[in-house]
Amino acid sequence: MNPIFEAFWYILPAYFANSSPVVLGGGTPIDFGKKWRDGRRIFGDGKTWRGFFGGITVGTVVGTIQHLMFPGYYGSLKLAVGVAFLLSLGALVGDLIGSFIKRRLNMPRGYPAVGLDQWGFLISALCFAYPLRTIPTGEVLFLLVVTPVIHWLANVFAYRMKWKNVPW
Amino acid sequence: MNPIFEAFWYILPAYFANSSPVVLGGGTPIDFGKKWRDGRRIFGDGKTWRGFFGGITVGTVVGTIQHLMFPGYYGSLKLAVGVAFLLSLGALVGDLIGSFIKRRLNMPRGYPAVGLDQWGFLISALCFAYPLRTIPTGEVLFLLVVTPVIHWLANVFAYRMKWKNVPW
Repeated sequence: MNPIFEAFWYILPAYFANSSPVVLGGGTPIDFGKKWRDGRRIFGDGKTWRGFFGGITVGTVVGTIQHLMFPGYYGSLKLAVGVAFLLSLGALVGDLIGSFIKRRLNMPRGYPAVGLDQWGFLISALCFAYPLRTIPTGEVLFLLVVTPVIHWLANVFAYRMKWKNVPW
Repeated sequence: MNPIFEAFWYILPAYFANSSPVVLGGGTPIDFGKKWRDGRRIFGDGKTWRGFFGGITVGTVVGTIQHLMFPGYYGSLKLAVGVAFLLSLGALVGDLIGSFIKRRLNMPRGYPAVGLDQWGFLISALCFAYPLRTIPTGEVLFLLVVTPVIHWLANVFAYRMKWKNVPW
């Protein structure tokens, strides 16, 4: 498989998991409004249970559809679903860790953290799925370089479509 | 070689190149005080020619010393110096790109960009050295996870030693 195509094919569930809360989000916050010992919210209102489980579901469904379209890549549905689930879980846990760090640094909800927002979910997704299936170093570096650009374009698009209030 | 040890051994020139401008810095700014079309500085006073070439020199010397200590890893001085030079150049170019982005976003000099500061130089260094010599995916992911922690500890240390005015 072409390395650029493989890199995108592999990471696709993480991209979907990371972006779906923009559409699926809302509802009860994961931290139930609770505060950390610094008096600030643990994650904030931006991270909700619906966004979290919705993101994992969307990412895992995307991985299943990918397997039906191209069964040869993973070879088994079990492996395809497992990798897609871990990529999605990793993306959303990475996003949560990012929110936790932003709250500790007293950055308001939705305020951009350049680098953390673009690389945090990706690195976390790659780490979670690593034990089951990974991609070569060159493809990881390719994703690290192109993901911030894709992330930025996707956010500008979501802002223009009025799905988001801010263009980041 | 133990994978954790190999990861640190490989990236060491980039770590030295990235941190040495704190000590070696000062002098003429790389942008010569010139402004971008948005009216703000291209890179700012924090990026100087002395810091840039000093960082590349320190990183390349570190790689040379590593080769003298353990010639078996690269096998030839030419390869060891080449990789160390590319890792150092990549680290400093990544740092410059980071400053360029921070200036465009109107962040003042020295203001932290969480993620960009910790991952930008590392990803750039790994990309520059990739054509000559790289490390496996697992070791890249390990470095992506531990480098922000090391970066943070190093900056707190430099602040306590009064080498830096801010603890980041």
